[in-house]
Amino acid sequence: MQNDPIEHLIALLSRLPGLGRRSARRAVLKMLMDPAGKMLPLADALRAAADAVRPCEVCGNLDTVSPCLICRDPHRDRKLVCVVEGVADLWALERAHTHHGTYHVLGGLLSALGGTGPEDLSITPLLRRIEDNGMEEVILALPATVDGATTAHYLTDRLKPTGIAVTRLAQGVPIGGALDVLDDGTLAAAFKARRPL
Amino acid sequence: MQNDPIEHLIALLSRLPGLGRRSARRAVLKMLMDPAGKMLPLADALRAAADAVRPCEVCGNLDTVSPCLICRDPHRDRKLVCVVEGVADLWALERAHTHHGTYHVLGGLLSALGGTGPEDLSITPLLRRIEDNGMEEVILALPATVDGATTAHYLTDRLKPTGIAVTRLAQGVPIGGALDVLDDGTLAAAFKARRPL
Repeated sequence: MQNDPIEHLIALLSRLPGLGRRSARRAVLKMLMDPAGKMLPLADALRAAADAVRPCEVCGNLDTVSPCLICRDPHRDRKLVCVVEGVADLWALERAHTHHGTYHVLGGLLSALGGTGPEDLSITPLLRRIEDNGMEEVILALPATVDGATTAHYLTDRLKPTGIAVTRLAQGVPIGGALDVLDDGTLAAAFKARRPL
Repeated sequence: MQNDPIEHLIALLSRLPGLGRRSARRAVLKMLMDPAGKMLPLADALRAAADAVRPCEVCGNLDTVSPCLICRDPHRDRKLVCVVEGVADLWALERAHTHHGTYHVLGGLLSALGGTGPEDLSITPLLRRIEDNGMEEVILALPATVDGATTAHYLTDRLKPTGIAVTRLAQGVPIGGALDVLDDGTLAAAFKARRPL
């Protein structure tokens, strides 16, 4: 009885992080009880987001405009840039309401095992932004993992000639933990207690 | 930076059972990394399911055809009908591969508190199906809750004049438990050990 369109939908939904096959099935059934009220609005919202959202040409954030609203915000301190691995970390920091500067999304971390080198990350654009804007501080908000530490180390070396202050989040980020699953309070505390590398 | 289309999508997704706000946000971010490969196919699948799926005019199952594939299946025993509260329970029983008869979806349970009376449920169509098909057994696969027991009691009374055998699932269904979250083995065992009311 569970034929193609339903099974196909369950399969796609269960691939999302946080949804197993069982919860995907429950979600689909709930939506099928009211297709016009629940299913079509979600389909429209997905399409609207896919059409509207693009990466910010300056910092790499995802937004409906490029440059993104953070890069356009005149109240943001352009002398201060916070470097993150990905957009999830940027959003997590925004929810913590502690950073009043700008961001730079690396798009990954250096990884010998994963074969990710400096040329795979947005490092040259970062150096150019620092120079063009006369930036004064780079905050490395990278995860407390081996790859995170390697990347922080590499960036510190690359940034040394520019004379810019390089800081990192305070210890307080759990070892091996991802930034975007931290509670906002811990994240804000670690951000405030950042110290020079 | 999280502006309308993204926030709107997160809000819709987080209303699905099993997805909180945090996991909805993670799911959206993951999809935004690959809109064409992840987001649009899901939008299409939702629309396809919403367009294709309808309730079966005979039993109330959800399928792309009406009568549904179970009602059309010549190998199904038409003398045997299994009465369930909702489509989720029907699907759960199908996954347990134990029932070779047909189904009847009540569309709810009698509930004094919830104000659900017999006229709100698909009871008259059930009585008509039993009569028209000369059915021999009704299996009441209703949850082991107060409302489930009330409904089973009411149906037994209504079915008595027809002389049809009325059975219910064996004890083994946890008290207060919903059918569609049971593991398939327990469900199959309870189904096989059903006994007359």
